[in-house]
This record gives sequence, C-alpha cells and structure tokens, in this order.
Amino acid sequence: MNFQTYNPPERVLMGPGPSNINPRVLNALSKPTIGHLDPRFIDLMDEIKQLLKYAFQTENDVTFPVSAPGSTGMETCLVNLIEPGEKVVVCVNGVFGGRMKEIIERCGGIPVVVNDDWGTSVGPSKLEEALTENPVAKIAAFVHAETSTGALSDVKTLAEISRKHDCLTIVDTVTSLGGSELKVDEWELDAVYSGTQKCLSCPPGLSPVTFSEKAINKIKNRKTKVQSWFMDLNLVLGYWGSGSKRSYHHTAPINSLYGLHEALLILHEEGIENAWQRHTANGKIFCNEIKKIGLSPFVKEEERLSQLISVTVPKHADEALVRTNLLEKYNIEIGAGLGALAGKVWRVGLMGHTSNINNINLCVDALSKELAV
Amino acid sequence: MNFQTYNPPERVLMGPGPSNINPRVLNALSKPTIGHLDPRFIDLMDEIKQLLKYAFQTENDVTFPVSAPGSTGMETCLVNLIEPGEKVVVCVNGVFGGRMKEIIERCGGIPVVVNDDWGTSVGPSKLEEALTENPVAKIAAFVHAETSTGALSDVKTLAEISRKHDCLTIVDTVTSLGGSELKVDEWELDAVYSGTQKCLSCPPGLSPVTFSEKAINKIKNRKTKVQSWFMDLNLVLGYWGSGSKRSYHHTAPINSLYGLHEALLILHEEGIENAWQRHTANGKIFCNEIKKIGLSPFVKEEERLSQLISVTVPKHADEALVRTNLLEKYNIEIGAGLGALAGKVWRVGLMGHTSNINNINLCVDALSKELAV
Repeated sequence: MNFQTYNPPERVLMGPGPSNINPRVLNALSKPTIGHLDPRFIDLMDEIKQLLKYAFQTENDVTFPVSAPGSTGMETCLVNLIEPGEKVVVCVNGVFGGRMKEIIERCGGIPVVVNDDWGTSVGPSKLEEALTENPVAKIAAFVHAETSTGALSDVKTLAEISRKHDCLTIVDTVTSLGGSELKVDEWELDAVYSGTQKCLSCPPGLSPVTFSEKAINKIKNRKTKVQSWFMDLNLVLGYWGSGSKRSYHHTAPINSLYGLHEALLILHEEGIENAWQRHTANGKIFCNEIKKIGLSPFVKEEERLSQLISVTVPKHADEALVRTNLLEKYNIEIGAGLGALAGKVWRVGLMGHTSNINNINLCVDALSKELAV
Repeated sequence: MNFQTYNPPERVLMGPGPSNINPRVLNALSKPTIGHLDPRFIDLMDEIKQLLKYAFQTENDVTFPVSAPGSTGMETCLVNLIEPGEKVVVCVNGVFGGRMKEIIERCGGIPVVVNDDWGTSVGPSKLEEALTENPVAKIAAFVHAETSTGALSDVKTLAEISRKHDCLTIVDTVTSLGGSELKVDEWELDAVYSGTQKCLSCPPGLSPVTFSEKAINKIKNRKTKVQSWFMDLNLVLGYWGSGSKRSYHHTAPINSLYGLHEALLILHEEGIENAWQRHTANGKIFCNEIKKIGLSPFVKEEERLSQLISVTVPKHADEALVRTNLLEKYNIEIGAGLGALAGKVWRVGLMGHTSNINNINLCVDALSKELAV
C-alpha cells in the first residue's frame, strides 16, 4: 500500500465538537516538544492551572487537565468520588447523563436515576424528591449542557438542592465551559469536568477538571483504592498538584497542552463574560435565522443552549443526505441526533471560535439551499 | 497576572522520553482539525491502523492507538483481560513491571510476582518456575524494554514459555516499538501496548495497542464488565473496529492522530528493520564514546537496550547538578534514575528522531565537560 502525508480538508465545524480551532492554537501545537519534567514545562503547567481556574471561575487548588478526552474527565470524577456500594443520584436527560449512570455502576456504585425527557432541562423538583427518598445518597450528578440534546440545566439550583441534602455534586460542563455562565465557586460545585474541543476550541484529547476541598477530602479519606491507576487523583496530584516537587506519574501530552494554554489565553483576552455573551447572542441569531427558512429549534427557548442547537428535521427532509451534502458541497459539518433523537434532529454547534456571524450565515444559507431541493 | 503565548526552548531530548520530534510530525499536528466522524477522518484512522500493524509486525485486526498516554495502554490491556479473582504472573525488573502489578491488584486480579534485579533482564527460568507453581494462572505479563533501567528482555522466549503453560501474554513495548526487534505475530504475543513519545518520536499522549484473536476472545467472553468505561474494548471497537459503521464512543484526539500518522509514515519510509539497526548501531557508538570519557553503562552488554542507556553516575559527580547543567548550558535533557536507581544512574535516550551521531557527540561532549569541572 502506498501511504502519503495526510492533508485534511478545511471544514467549517458546526457539529457537536470539535469546533473550529483558532490558528493561534494550531500554531501552538507544533512548537518544539520539551520534557514533561523540564522546569520550563512546569512553568507552563502552572499557567494552565491558573487560566483554567479563571475559565471555571474557581480558586480550587485542584484544577488541571486530565491527559485524555472529556469522557475520561467524567470517569475521573466518578471513580475518585464513589466507593463500592455507595448510592449516587444521577440525573439523566440525554446521552451523557446515561453515560454517568453506566460508569457509576462500573465503580460499584448504586445509581438512583432521575429521568427527564430528552430535550428538556433536569427538573429541580425531581432531584429534590430523589434526594429526599434516598437520604443515604451523598453524591448527586448532573449535566450542565446536554451535548446530545442541546438542553441547558440550572446547575446553580441543582447544586443548592444537593447541598441541602448534604450531597457532593458532580457536574458535566463539557459543552458549557466557556460558552454558558458557569461559576464553580459561587455555585459551590464539587467535582466538575469538561472537554477542550467545544467552547474552548482546542483539538479534542484533554479534559479540564476542578475539585472542591470537600471533594478532595472525600477522596483522601477513601476506604478503598480508586479502581483506575491512571485516573487516581491521589497519584495524579503528585504531578499536577501544587507541591514544590513534581513527581512522574504518566508522561503528559506536551504539545496538546501548548494548544490548551493558547486557547485559554484567547479566552482570557476576550474575557469570560464576553465569551458567554457572544455565545448567547449568536445562538439567538441562529435560531431567528432558521425560523426564516421554516426550521425550528427542538428545545424550547428557556431550556435551550446557545452554543449547541438541536434543529428539528422537517418531515420531507432526508436527514442524513442533508448532512452529507452540507459536508461534501459546502465543507460544513453539522451533527446527527444521538440515541432517542437519532434521525429527528440535526445538532448545530456554535462553539468557541466557530461562534460568529459568518458561520451562521454559511450554515443557514446551505441548509436553505439543500432543503429547497 | 500577565499571561503570554508560550514559547518553549529548543531542547535536545535525550531523556527517557519524549524524544525529539521530526519537524514533519510537528507540522502535521497543526493541520486543520476535522470531525471525528468525518469520512475523511475515518480514512486516516484506517491508514493509522495499517501503519501500526506494520510497526508491530502483526496482522491483528484489533490494532489502534488508545486516546491517552502509554500508561493507559497498560491499563487498557490489564482491565480488559483480567477478571476479578484471576491469578496473573507478572515479571518485575523495574518501575513498569511494578506498575503492572499495581494495576493487576486494582482490577481485582491476584499478582504472582517474579522479581529480577533492576538493570537485568527478566529471567526465563524464573518465569517458567512461577508458571509451573501456579497452573491456575492464565495470563503472564512482562516488559520488553524497561524504561526505568535500560534492560531488554527476551520477549520471544518469555512468550514461548507462557504459551507452553497455556497463558496469554501482556507485553509492555513502550520503549521498544520502532527501536528494538519486535515481531508480535511471529512471537505470538497477545496484548501489546506502547507509547508514541519514544522510538516513534511523536509527542506523548497516545498509546498504540494490538490484541491477538485469542485475547479478543477472552475479552468477548468475560463474565464481568470491564471496570473502566473509557478503556472497555467492547465499546472502543465500535469506533476503532473494522465494522462498516463507526459509532461514537469518545471524541478521538484528531490532531494528535495527524502527528502519529506522519510519524508512522516516516518509520515506514525508513523501514522497520533499518530503524532497529540504526538504534542498535547508535547505542553501541554511544557506549563506546562514554567509555572514552571514563563512564560506563549500568546494564551489561547482552541485556542492554540501545535506545535507552543507563549510565552509572561516577562517585565524585553531583548527579542532579550535571543534569541541570546539561539542560541549562547545552539545552540537552537527560533523565534521572527512577525508584531503586534514583541518584545512581543517568538515563540517556537515543530514541527515534533523537538517535543520530550528532546528538551522541553533543551529549558525550557536554558530559565530558561537566564531569571535568
């Protein structure tokens, strides 16, 4: 077989992630690799931690990127906090709440599931009810921005309810970090994970996490070892912790971290509130524009994400063909529905560097043309 | 705080990894990101699998890069193959054998440890003895190239012995892949993991793995679920498997995979046997050169790796100061000893793109100057 250097096409990435990458970030990725224990690299790690604290709006000392994709951030939070036999209340309103439930079981935890319809927010009263009925549960888990449906949940309120019931909270912010208002300290969230390929507009492969002191205390006082060696925070913090000496755990993904640093720097330059506002404004514009061509958002306005919008597929349209045509004719990627929403919605991402007026116009124009065929 | 774009120094990477990256690979990393389900990306995945099969010298269908560092490749092999209560014979002659033991325990396995001195190969007769004494054990695990000591083990013989005792083999080839003779099919190895930042000269962050049919059969017939969701091959293969349809599991680290593709292409262009020979020849040259300045390799010749050489620290030398001076004055990184060898050896890597005569001369010259002070 004849192999050659790979040259990817240039796509407009408007699916559920990855989003388009700022050229500054792509450039950072290709800087010379240095050692993972090089003092100059340790300096970079410190800056990444500070910039991540800004992005998460937290002073949590334990704030760093897990060296693997967002799903590993999820698993890291769950395997560290849950001990076998523990009841965990988990809210499921899409694929990612369901994934949490699956991992809770693999940790030996006992999930108590609070179900909400796909495309709606997590219902605070349902969570309250589940916590009241299960006073033994000391952890509640929910998703801020459900990437599979485009629904936003009121994490501030869900966390208040959880605290009232003496529960630590595990919060999925994969799609919300940098795109939706998120205040880890003010909202007193305990274990929060995210991804880099959504509103941070980095390539996929890293999972920023942050843990409150209460969460770290629970982890330090575990009776059993964390089942994963790679994800065990007691070990990882020897490298990412704030001690004077960094000890080897695994080899950090150096160049990916160059990229994350630059992406976080761009967010810092824009200002986190401005980033939230930009996503909100562009989400509104997109929804208005699709209405003009006869389409409608799947999620109702008050529960809708701005950075990831599920669009109901019209009855006459060939869902997969429209996506294929957008990709092949216009180089625009949009996402398919997942799970219960497969075939029923397109998922359009306006995340990070992708979220701008020109991309909205490109996408709406292409959809309009393809649906008119 | 005032944050700025990060500009790493240019280092000559002669530690235990990462090694220096070919500029072609750095360039590949910064190509435009595309979606992880884009048909053009699926094509790239297929090429990566084929190129990895070449590197591993295997026709195993299940050959792909785990989306996380080498330690995760180790954990992936162990969590998938071991069920709770299973006895596993594990050979420990350095840090990484020890890490396998630790992970075996976290999987609920019962490790039977075969100890060898640090800096020596795994002893085939010791393995044979342990397998004879533990006929219930159906898995044997060992390290091909111990990164912590610089010792090479005879994996071909160890695998023969294991097969005789009806054991599947789990083999660590993190430092050997692309640098030492390794023939997965000819030697009939069952679960093999590696890293990208050693002789493949990619940035760290991915872990190539390959599994024999026998290994996959064991995994498919497990009685219990794999404890890790992220590492569960039954799920991962929905994305990396050879089925006609790729389904979403986690978001693959796109740009890192661009880099891996280019690095594997470079290996393919050189030819795997040529790469092995280059590493062997340069290892010999390095050892001859250090003898001329009064230094000696820690591992005896017949058990010594060519791509990672432990050098005994002379009595009069300040181990840490020499490393610091090499880094600060010459931009040359060499590694410290780990665990039992801390303070006793330097570890000098001649891996992948780093393995050339100029780097040998730079390093020996710098060591000579610093030791003469």
